[in-house]
Amino acid sequence: MISTNEYFDGNVKSLGYKSANGNSTVGVMEAGEYEFGTSTHETMIVVEGEMTVKLPNTTDWKTYKAGEAYEIDANQKFQVKVTEQTAYLCQYK
Amino acid sequence: MISTNEYFDGNVKSLGYKSANGNSTVGVMEAGEYEFGTSTHETMIVVEGEMTVKLPNTTDWKTYKAGEAYEIDANQKFQVKVTEQTAYLCQYK
Repeated sequence: MISTNEYFDGNVKSLGYKSANGNSTVGVMEAGEYEFGTSTHETMIVVEGEMTVKLPNTTDWKTYKAGEAYEIDANQKFQVKVTEQTAYLCQYK
Repeated sequence: MISTNEYFDGNVKSLGYKSANGNSTVGVMEAGEYEFGTSTHETMIVVEGEMTVKLPNTTDWKTYKAGEAYEIDANQKFQVKVTEQTAYLCQYK
């Protein structure tokens, strides 16, 4: 089954599925600023657009473009800013 | 706005958005075999999983893995087989 998920009043939407790598989502964010929390380790890969991210325990923002990835440990919070609709792949593992 | 789309009784779902490149969708297909039709030129990029594809006017099936892409002209039909849940990016341009 492909799950459909909405967050932040529909400003972030994702589709959940299971790949050979484990659980994943592909999603899209509207332009805006978001704080996400993790319950498992996550690898985030920008599919189209770009994300400016403040990872846990850091003070600097870093921009990730299509094809670039970052990782977040379980039970952490991180901030994301996007200036245009941006698509991502999130792998939970 | 991020549109939510379902095809083939929910066996294919996608999220539509607009990037700097033009209109795009990210989507997921359940294992199965599908025939799609294009109304514009499409570039399909496998995000996770793999697709076996018969392009218009060809007789051979070819498998595309994550990161690989194929293109279809407007007003064509093409066949896709997937053996596991597979995520894709489709750029309309």
